[in-house]
Amino acid sequence: MNVGVLGGGQLGRMLALAGVPLGARFRFLEHRSPAPVDGLGEVVRAPYDDADALARFRDGLEVGTYEFENVPDASARALADAEIPVYPPPAALEFARDRKHEKDGFGALGIPTAPWRAVDDRASFDAAVEQLGLPAMLKTRRLGYDGKGQRLLRSPADLDAAWAALGDRPLVLEGFVEFSRELSIVGVRGRDGETAFYPLVENTHASGVLVRTDAPAPGCSPELQRTAERYAGAVMRYLDYVGVLALELFQVGDELWANEMAPRVHNSGHWTQNGAVTSQFENHMRAVMGLPLGSTEPVGHSVMLNLLGALPPAEAVLAEPMAHLHLYDKAPRPGRKIGHVNVCGPDREAVRDAARRIERTFPDGAGPA
Amino acid sequence: MNVGVLGGGQLGRMLALAGVPLGARFRFLEHRSPAPVDGLGEVVRAPYDDADALARFRDGLEVGTYEFENVPDASARALADAEIPVYPPPAALEFARDRKHEKDGFGALGIPTAPWRAVDDRASFDAAVEQLGLPAMLKTRRLGYDGKGQRLLRSPADLDAAWAALGDRPLVLEGFVEFSRELSIVGVRGRDGETAFYPLVENTHASGVLVRTDAPAPGCSPELQRTAERYAGAVMRYLDYVGVLALELFQVGDELWANEMAPRVHNSGHWTQNGAVTSQFENHMRAVMGLPLGSTEPVGHSVMLNLLGALPPAEAVLAEPMAHLHLYDKAPRPGRKIGHVNVCGPDREAVRDAARRIERTFPDGAGPA
Repeated sequence: MNVGVLGGGQLGRMLALAGVPLGARFRFLEHRSPAPVDGLGEVVRAPYDDADALARFRDGLEVGTYEFENVPDASARALADAEIPVYPPPAALEFARDRKHEKDGFGALGIPTAPWRAVDDRASFDAAVEQLGLPAMLKTRRLGYDGKGQRLLRSPADLDAAWAALGDRPLVLEGFVEFSRELSIVGVRGRDGETAFYPLVENTHASGVLVRTDAPAPGCSPELQRTAERYAGAVMRYLDYVGVLALELFQVGDELWANEMAPRVHNSGHWTQNGAVTSQFENHMRAVMGLPLGSTEPVGHSVMLNLLGALPPAEAVLAEPMAHLHLYDKAPRPGRKIGHVNVCGPDREAVRDAARRIERTFPDGAGPA
Repeated sequence: MNVGVLGGGQLGRMLALAGVPLGARFRFLEHRSPAPVDGLGEVVRAPYDDADALARFRDGLEVGTYEFENVPDASARALADAEIPVYPPPAALEFARDRKHEKDGFGALGIPTAPWRAVDDRASFDAAVEQLGLPAMLKTRRLGYDGKGQRLLRSPADLDAAWAALGDRPLVLEGFVEFSRELSIVGVRGRDGETAFYPLVENTHASGVLVRTDAPAPGCSPELQRTAERYAGAVMRYLDYVGVLALELFQVGDELWANEMAPRVHNSGHWTQNGAVTSQFENHMRAVMGLPLGSTEPVGHSVMLNLLGALPPAEAVLAEPMAHLHLYDKAPRPGRKIGHVNVCGPDREAVRDAARRIERTFPDGAGPA
């Protein structure tokens, strides 16, 4: 099956590695060169909105998908116009791409979120701050990821600088959430509506960037898992979703509040490559290709560590027998995601100890920028 | 690391899928077009002995390996002449490529085999038949695989036809082995001499072609496993081996007799992709790249079924939640290996039942030619 992927970063790379054994042949639309998908299929090297490139990209495709949600609508439409099915449905991109739409959607589906207000001008900004109080987080409605496009407001003295930095764009203000931890759930929905969910995982962020995932998240009740599945399932049904979806959550007491949704394979699901019966990448490809979903059962315990900015020596990481290395073939640059390590085994404490030893091999300069 | 692979079939394809996450970039030397490695790296499309192509193939490589043992010596030498390390060492190719050398080697290492005789002319053929008795198997010394280049001799009436078919080449005659089953062991040796072994597996052949592997082989004593590791380890040490090696064995009572050695990843190790902590493909790449080996521990029980000649519907195979599909992107042709299915889970009987249901989805015409 000829599969087109909008985007050619590490997620596209890992989708290809999982999809090739299923009989998929890949074509990517990606403007960067080099790109992590180089050598794993045909790369149409052009911006997402280049009409000629889009025509070449879509020629002969049987199905299209994304590895990046900030794709222009025109690109998705170009596939739809050629009657090429696109999964997840473009409506999911629109849902996820704009924090206001997303929060409105969560609200309509009965999924709790932190209190928030849309901010369109200085007056609505000041009103929102008054209503939600401080601290609060000012975020761009669009194009934010990995902590980019956001400012933490601790005191009234921070307002002017935040407004100067972000005030020219549509924004939302999010009230402060006293959460005990950050969790996420990755789900997958097939073309026939079959759904499956991986266990809740616990995520550790630094400077807004994911640095670590513990899977399954320790101390989650079956009820918490059911709640998370209910929320992710509601979003998937609402969007008539096909593929993998990730829902980032705050745990607040016994409750889960939605933070944001990613309409794609997700960094917090990378542990599934070695720690689950079927990886999120394989399940996304199965869903997109119209195949039955694979088991989402975890195999033991896993810790995923992101490799940010600088690589540790592969020899040192793999000296741990439970470690698996996943490199993205990207040039190191401060804070850049250039790979990850999965540590998986039957005993949680042994896995955590191995993860700790692996973190000690990280060179100076590794970590969020 | 730039890795060159001599050969571009399904083994090269699966080596690439396992090596890319470790940071390997692949170049293949392969004369067939299309080939299973297409799209997974650069393909130098030429015969193995094309000097110009070899020069292009080796340019810029950091290490070379094989996915096919019947490579001309000149190809291996072309890499060695350019001071590119080649693993496994070319001596391993020579050991495996000629049944007489192989059996001499097994004998010298104290590894039992079926009784055998070299056959160089009709007189030595007749003498060998008289010494070993019938039934017996006449095999070409070189270029035999998947049951090709061999004739079963049941009675004296079979001798003339067998001689007419094979008598123009150097041969060996193998005495009949009353074995209870066919086993194999896959081992791996790192550049530093570290070794690791997967558990013994049980193989089922039809018409000389592997159709099924059960892993771990049921009913193997720890002593049998130790014996198999001792034999495979002796071969690896003798050859100063680096990479994955497979040793095919007959179980004869409580003994293991060596049948043949493959100096590469092996069909009877395909189950490790889903049924072991680290696959044979990843471990071969780790060894070749000078990285520490990964754990060879099995995860539950596995059945590997080869897809020969015709593909079952992917939907039907993957309807079994324990099934994983691995396609080779090869055109179906009677008897041709075009993919395999791994069925893996914690319960052996459940895995076998699922394998049975999957076999029922195989279309007419599937199976050995």
